[in-house]
Amino acid sequence: MYKVLKELKVELGERSYPIIIGQGLLGNYDLTPWVAGNQVMIVTNETVGPRYLEQAVACFPGKCVDVVTLPDGEKYKDWQTLNLIFDRLLERQHSRQTTLVALGGGVVGDMAGFAAACYQRSVPFIQIPTTLLSQVDSSVGGKTGINHPLGKNMVGAFHQPNIVLIDTDSLSTLPAREVSAGLAEVIKYGLIRDESFLGWLEGNIDALRRLEPDALGEAIYRSCLCKAEVVAVDEREGGLRAILNLGHTFGHAIETYAGYGNWLHGEAVGTGMLMASDLSLREGMIGQKEHERAAALIHRAGLPERPPKGMSPEDFMSRMAVDKKNVDGRLRLVLMRSLGDAFVTADAAPQNLKDTLLEFTRS
Amino acid sequence: MYKVLKELKVELGERSYPIIIGQGLLGNYDLTPWVAGNQVMIVTNETVGPRYLEQAVACFPGKCVDVVTLPDGEKYKDWQTLNLIFDRLLERQHSRQTTLVALGGGVVGDMAGFAAACYQRSVPFIQIPTTLLSQVDSSVGGKTGINHPLGKNMVGAFHQPNIVLIDTDSLSTLPAREVSAGLAEVIKYGLIRDESFLGWLEGNIDALRRLEPDALGEAIYRSCLCKAEVVAVDEREGGLRAILNLGHTFGHAIETYAGYGNWLHGEAVGTGMLMASDLSLREGMIGQKEHERAAALIHRAGLPERPPKGMSPEDFMSRMAVDKKNVDGRLRLVLMRSLGDAFVTADAAPQNLKDTLLEFTRS
Repeated sequence: MYKVLKELKVELGERSYPIIIGQGLLGNYDLTPWVAGNQVMIVTNETVGPRYLEQAVACFPGKCVDVVTLPDGEKYKDWQTLNLIFDRLLERQHSRQTTLVALGGGVVGDMAGFAAACYQRSVPFIQIPTTLLSQVDSSVGGKTGINHPLGKNMVGAFHQPNIVLIDTDSLSTLPAREVSAGLAEVIKYGLIRDESFLGWLEGNIDALRRLEPDALGEAIYRSCLCKAEVVAVDEREGGLRAILNLGHTFGHAIETYAGYGNWLHGEAVGTGMLMASDLSLREGMIGQKEHERAAALIHRAGLPERPPKGMSPEDFMSRMAVDKKNVDGRLRLVLMRSLGDAFVTADAAPQNLKDTLLEFTRS
Repeated sequence: MYKVLKELKVELGERSYPIIIGQGLLGNYDLTPWVAGNQVMIVTNETVGPRYLEQAVACFPGKCVDVVTLPDGEKYKDWQTLNLIFDRLLERQHSRQTTLVALGGGVVGDMAGFAAACYQRSVPFIQIPTTLLSQVDSSVGGKTGINHPLGKNMVGAFHQPNIVLIDTDSLSTLPAREVSAGLAEVIKYGLIRDESFLGWLEGNIDALRRLEPDALGEAIYRSCLCKAEVVAVDEREGGLRAILNLGHTFGHAIETYAGYGNWLHGEAVGTGMLMASDLSLREGMIGQKEHERAAALIHRAGLPERPPKGMSPEDFMSRMAVDKKNVDGRLRLVLMRSLGDAFVTADAAPQNLKDTLLEFTRS
């Protein structure tokens, strides 16, 4: 059977929902109380499906379960692939009372969530994230969407799940590179809001890379809790929520430069956080020791510490100009006042930004 | 200058917004108080743009106004055309503080509204409907979306505008066929909820077809008011709101059979209401005289009274099976208890439905 390690509730008024973190949940945990009608559509991909689909179906005893399997990868996070979900829903005559289930990583979650937001102008959905990154990131916040050739996540919706089921067992098949990518977002929560969590991570980063369940349960729980607190204050990203994008402005530029899917999102965020830390240092906000502490943890997580070879400061600037955080053309960045205290600013000195970009792009 | 004929407020809590109905509004009414940032993107089509774009731009003095012109017609209400809006927004680097403006009929409004709902996970929008149908229908309710080859409006979102500006002068260039199509929705409000408005329409239907401004202002006002009352009770279409779909289940079947755009939406709704009235008669809800009164008004509005030639009962049934109102496979229809009192039911006798379909499809 299963063991629940941790449980939390994301408080969003009538859109509140629980996150269940445990072992052996897939195949055993009954999700039917979270399904209003008779129809369920599981959205997965060709990598995750063969491993976990049968167990996921077993979470919906007595329901009519259909499945749509998408190609695997960030490069398929587009209209064409999204339409595969709508095609299947309509072919199988799913009504407005259907429930969509995302079984997979962040790409599957973003697309299944966006399909749920749009199908018949919104149907409920359930998240079963199977990668560390999606467990600590997409589980909370309700962000869904797809990419556009001119920008990442440019088309989407806010749509909250009914419940999120996180089975740490599903990480056993995750490549080490993806574990590191997930740890980037875990470290992020420490850097933006929780210096004591940073200390915990410094003591447990190796156990996390070895996928020890108790360490994983704790890291996922504290990450989701941190994000849930931020999102509860600011569901629609008017203010505080933007600090969750630490490292993401630089990171998105890296991802678009490298071509979606060549760098993992978490890898780009890891390098992006290092760049944001460097800029925070140049701005006189954090000290050299703090910067080195952040850099050491990013290094120990096994994350890349430089942008792709050949990427220039101009490559960064042109891609950062369309970032969603910008207001009427002014570039906004997330920086740190100190470790565990991030904020959004449009006032970084252009010369400091230039120096950070030069530092990270010189060969 | 301009003359405001009528004004109403759609009450939806923090999403409440005004509808301004008048003459000479386009080119003269200042909409900048409804624009938060500096950027405006007007979405129009190749028919409406040449006539009213210059005047629409003049409603946003001092703002950076960009334009995207879509091909005209229901058959372009698809992903490909929707992407033209996203392409332009991103090419012109519109930020999350941009405002989208729909200048055109229902198709432009649905697409611009859906683009606004999805662009960067939602930006504000303004409606300037230029057809009678969109003025009395899309102005209220916040429904946006696109079609799918397997069903109309199957992909979309609820997204309320900041303000709706209705200029009755813009109807002067509307073909008579489209005026009739708009009158179908006007008549619908009388049939579902307001028997006294039906009486008013019987006295003014000819003035409306002649586009007399005072009659138009009154008809648009009462239609919007009726829809606003229904939507205020039921914003997300859980219950009461479904009565707004009188004639739409049959109508959607006609539209998909004929191929999107060959029948105008209002024309299909006109015939659909006649079929719903016929079924209400067979169900013993309304009497022969009431049915004839409804039929006479639909006739005087210049609407078609039969489905396309060759359409069979089976053609109806297969297309009605994917209707959004269905719950777990049961066909739901809007019928009338009496003129001015519609309701939703899944209990119509199959034989009566069959007889209505046979009656309207025999050659």
